[in-house]
Amino acid sequence: MARGKTQNQRSRSYESDDHERGACEWCEYALVITLATILLIGVSALTVFWVFYYREGYAWADDLPDKQFNLHPTLMVAGFITFSGFSVLLYRICRCFRRIYVKLLHAIFHALAFPCIVIGFLAVLDYHNKKGINNFYSLHSWIGFVAMGLFGIQYAVGFFSFLLLLICNKGTAGFRASLVPVHAAFGILTFVLGVCACLTGLTEKAIFSLGSEVYATLNNEAIVINAIGMSVVAVAILVLYTVRGTGGYRLRKVAAQHPS
Amino acid sequence: MARGKTQNQRSRSYESDDHERGACEWCEYALVITLATILLIGVSALTVFWVFYYREGYAWADDLPDKQFNLHPTLMVAGFITFSGFSVLLYRICRCFRRIYVKLLHAIFHALAFPCIVIGFLAVLDYHNKKGINNFYSLHSWIGFVAMGLFGIQYAVGFFSFLLLLICNKGTAGFRASLVPVHAAFGILTFVLGVCACLTGLTEKAIFSLGSEVYATLNNEAIVINAIGMSVVAVAILVLYTVRGTGGYRLRKVAAQHPS
Repeated sequence: MARGKTQNQRSRSYESDDHERGACEWCEYALVITLATILLIGVSALTVFWVFYYREGYAWADDLPDKQFNLHPTLMVAGFITFSGFSVLLYRICRCFRRIYVKLLHAIFHALAFPCIVIGFLAVLDYHNKKGINNFYSLHSWIGFVAMGLFGIQYAVGFFSFLLLLICNKGTAGFRASLVPVHAAFGILTFVLGVCACLTGLTEKAIFSLGSEVYATLNNEAIVINAIGMSVVAVAILVLYTVRGTGGYRLRKVAAQHPS
Repeated sequence: MARGKTQNQRSRSYESDDHERGACEWCEYALVITLATILLIGVSALTVFWVFYYREGYAWADDLPDKQFNLHPTLMVAGFITFSGFSVLLYRICRCFRRIYVKLLHAIFHALAFPCIVIGFLAVLDYHNKKGINNFYSLHSWIGFVAMGLFGIQYAVGFFSFLLLLICNKGTAGFRASLVPVHAAFGILTFVLGVCACLTGLTEKAIFSLGSEVYATLNNEAIVINAIGMSVVAVAILVLYTVRGTGGYRLRKVAAQHPS
């Protein structure tokens, strides 16, 4: 009995089915965590700095539509990059935690991303209506629409399948196991589409706000906007490399064996 | 001896170490091939249509810089999306071919992408110089620069490691095996950065060519440009899903065992 219980507890963490990490793997691990923390918090901090220093801060009022617009890039970067990025990376990195804690962390970070994306979307919709600009005309808005749709579907499916269905742990194990790679693939897709939406949005904003001629002189604000974009790119490189890297094989194998 | 030879020949194709595909997997396989062919050729065809119908075609002459610029989006979409996309997908899909043929196909499609990207880059560099526009000021150009750099490094490393080092098959097996997941991860990264560069470039071009007010009316040309962008997004979804999907696990396992 005691042995069975220990084995069951052991199998609740990814690491239990895995070999012990060597010094090289621990170095990679520490480097990824440090870089990720700096980049994921840095990209949102840089966006807030840009808005306060060059775009006069935030507001939500009928007579200050431009300040209201500023909520859009800030919240979208926070939702699609910072919180989603942390959520994906933590799920991948925290291999020696118990699985249920990792899943809760994953769900909590996505729960933080959710209101950011919704309010960020409402801010720009209301801004467009106040300024009499058409909605959903640009490539950026089309990409953003697909990204938001995928995000919503992924969150609903993930929450229902990987947390709620634990009520019937044994009966749903096979279903959950088969869903793991699909959820992971669409999760990466959603993240990449969020990245594409941010980059096209920053390009739009740079040209609309600065004008094409000032943008071409690469003034200070242009450098800050480009730096936000390149930070988003760096986050994407880090997340895609970590998720798909050499360790991914092991995680997938374990996830298929122990889906809960 | 005979048995050893047969085993060696069998291990030369990915499929040999795999289970036989079921009807469902064959359906997914056929669907991916059909969709990929339509989308990958379609995105380049749509770009050529856009240039001829709305942007007066191609040229490379001092007095026609705008026509020369048109080479840039066309060749970059062909290089980073169509040829690179085919190359990545074929490597993933052709599991029952002998590995050396798959690798040659992979190298040939990337060899087709290479001149497209180089000439596409030279076309816009020369266009900027002719028009007196600064180079490398926009977020698009910064992303494109990183994408081109990664593409070059990946091609050189891949060609040297996975084709040239076959001269010493046994001696380099361990090195090549350890390089497979790194090459695959950076390959996906390069493709995603190419997608980001295309989408930010299309956004720039739409605003510069149409003007922000005409773009907001979503006229016919705006719809065509957005359609090119969404086709690029669709290709990205297909490639990322296929590469990372349920079958990826098996391919990775086989690649690690038989790196050549």
